[in-house]
Amino acid sequence: MDKNLTKYPDTLAYRSVIESLNKRGVSVEDIAKITFDNQKKYIKGLTMGMAISSVDRVMHKREVMNNAMVAFALDDMANNNALPQPLNTIVREDMGVFGTDELLAVGISFLSGTIGITNFGYIDKIKQGIVKDLDTRKNEVTTFSDDIVGAIASEAGARLAHKYE
Amino acid sequence: MDKNLTKYPDTLAYRSVIESLNKRGVSVEDIAKITFDNQKKYIKGLTMGMAISSVDRVMHKREVMNNAMVAFALDDMANNNALPQPLNTIVREDMGVFGTDELLAVGISFLSGTIGITNFGYIDKIKQGIVKDLDTRKNEVTTFSDDIVGAIASEAGARLAHKYE
Amino acid sequence: MDKNLTKYPDTLAYRSVIESLNKRGVSVEDIAKITFDNQKKYIKGLTMGMAISSVDRVMHKREVMNNAMVAFALDDMANNNALPQPLNTIVREDMGVFGTDELLAVGISFLSGTIGITNFGYIDKIKQGIVKDLDTRKNEVTTFSDDIVGAIASEAGARLAHKYE
Amino acid sequence: MDKNLTKYPDTLAYRSVIESLNKRGVSVEDIAKITFDNQKKYIKGLTMGMAISSVDRVMHKREVMNNAMVAFALDDMANNNALPQPLNTIVREDMGVFGTDELLAVGISFLSGTIGITNFGYIDKIKQGIVKDLDTRKNEVTTFSDDIVGAIASEAGARLAHKYE
Repeated sequence: MDKNLTKYPDTLAYRSVIESLNKRGVSVEDIAKITFDNQKKYIKGLTMGMAISSVDRVMHKREVMNNAMVAFALDDMANNNALPQPLNTIVREDMGVFGTDELLAVGISFLSGTIGITNFGYIDKIKQGIVKDLDTRKNEVTTFSDDIVGAIASEAGARLAHKYE
Repeated sequence: MDKNLTKYPDTLAYRSVIESLNKRGVSVEDIAKITFDNQKKYIKGLTMGMAISSVDRVMHKREVMNNAMVAFALDDMANNNALPQPLNTIVREDMGVFGTDELLAVGISFLSGTIGITNFGYIDKIKQGIVKDLDTRKNEVTTFSDDIVGAIASEAGARLAHKYE
Repeated sequence: MDKNLTKYPDTLAYRSVIESLNKRGVSVEDIAKITFDNQKKYIKGLTMGMAISSVDRVMHKREVMNNAMVAFALDDMANNNALPQPLNTIVREDMGVFGTDELLAVGISFLSGTIGITNFGYIDKIKQGIVKDLDTRKNEVTTFSDDIVGAIASEAGARLAHKYE
Repeated sequence: MDKNLTKYPDTLAYRSVIESLNKRGVSVEDIAKITFDNQKKYIKGLTMGMAISSVDRVMHKREVMNNAMVAFALDDMANNNALPQPLNTIVREDMGVFGTDELLAVGISFLSGTIGITNFGYIDKIKQGIVKDLDTRKNEVTTFSDDIVGAIASEAGARLAHKYE
């Protein structure tokens, strides 16, 4: 369709991601807590302030905002049973062989290289912090959201690892 | 939410992908034509039948069906202005720095390894065959659809390359 | 240089990978044990025989053999201080911000889709089974080898997950 | 083996990459020329200076330096027939189903997101500029080198695309 008529709306995109997180009761601090807990054994002198700052930087990357906006939109629509079938059921039940959620997360966690990928795989398996909270909610579809949150924490950690090596 | 209550609906997912392609006027043959044109110089004796068969095999992979269903749903919703903002505008205008569509395509074209990735990058740039047709449609959002079609063609070609090496 | 003069040597490549594993004291069973331990909670009736068979299938994929041969060659050369500097030191010390080893592993563990990626991230962090043994060896460079072993186990698990869903 | 005894040698790594490029007769300008030619139609006012500066930035990323050092070492060893068999032959002949070279390139070109991936796939297929020169050399193994050069150009272009959107 019509192409490139408009500049990419960085500010609106960022606000949209923050609002979607807020709506799910997720703060930047919740995400930074995962980053901090994972990286503190590798980075001497790491503070929560540094983790928060890294999460904030990551959340301004377009690739992150794009994947996050798509992810939150899909969860919201599955919540309203507004996705076509059989996708709606697949997303609502977070089926084990559905991997598009993890793919969007990989697209985020790879942006500083492979450290973010192993971070993400680990967080995704052990369901750390707010990721576990999201993953276990009743009456709320979080199939994509928990992976996006884990991926932002992973990528923020990878950034710190490279910066403070 | 409720997890793993249901077996993955392979048949319904496959039918859904075929229907979404048909709705866009895309046949398996259209996709296989791209595969054939790209691989014929590498594979002696390659026929359209072999290309069609490879596309069909690729389209039965769960990872492919999942990404394709998500992609078609997103285009359909953007067509109906049913995505939240600013995502709706970003998808409708297929902005150059929006890369979630290519990410879903990478998730498909990597399944036989890196040959599919270079195939996809090339097809995506030169807009080959039905991909060009999709990319240039007026009054129809095809931001995700053209990449999915290109990715299936790419992955089908990578499969053939490995099989007939 | 001279291109495509020879068919890809599948049998020699497979034997080379097996020999490199043997030289490191790693058996197919050791790898399959990781696969089995990770997937048994998801797949009812999973046996070690099924895990061994899946590992064997994965080890015949060209993309796997290629990355594994490169990985083992690099570790062997670092063992002999035969890599150029500063790469030799970086590999010998398995520096945290060196990620080429994990990249080769990602190239293996993604071949059935994103399940293998999260499997790999987890195994890489907790250093499961023979991966831990490899990772903690004295007087032997295993920077690449442990990731390759973890990646083969991950990909074998992802295959089983899709097959027995 | 011994871990984390030493800080990552950023300066030595960068010099090593530059020297390996020089040895192959490749300058930063040669790489930037590919970046410039690919992005000029998308970025109004793009200059060679901007392309050179972007290539230089990319070449200082650790993930890039790591993959590049590994790639150049492998080509050099294949040149000297110093790799184990059958890997030595596979690399020397740059076999079509050998994909580890493209994998290292993907690890570079993904660092700003998916734009770099499609850039790389395209450059890899059409063998643009210095990539073609490298690819067609006689008596010199460039299996990995041409992909690394293409990947750096791709990633530099993706950076510019995001920056000047």
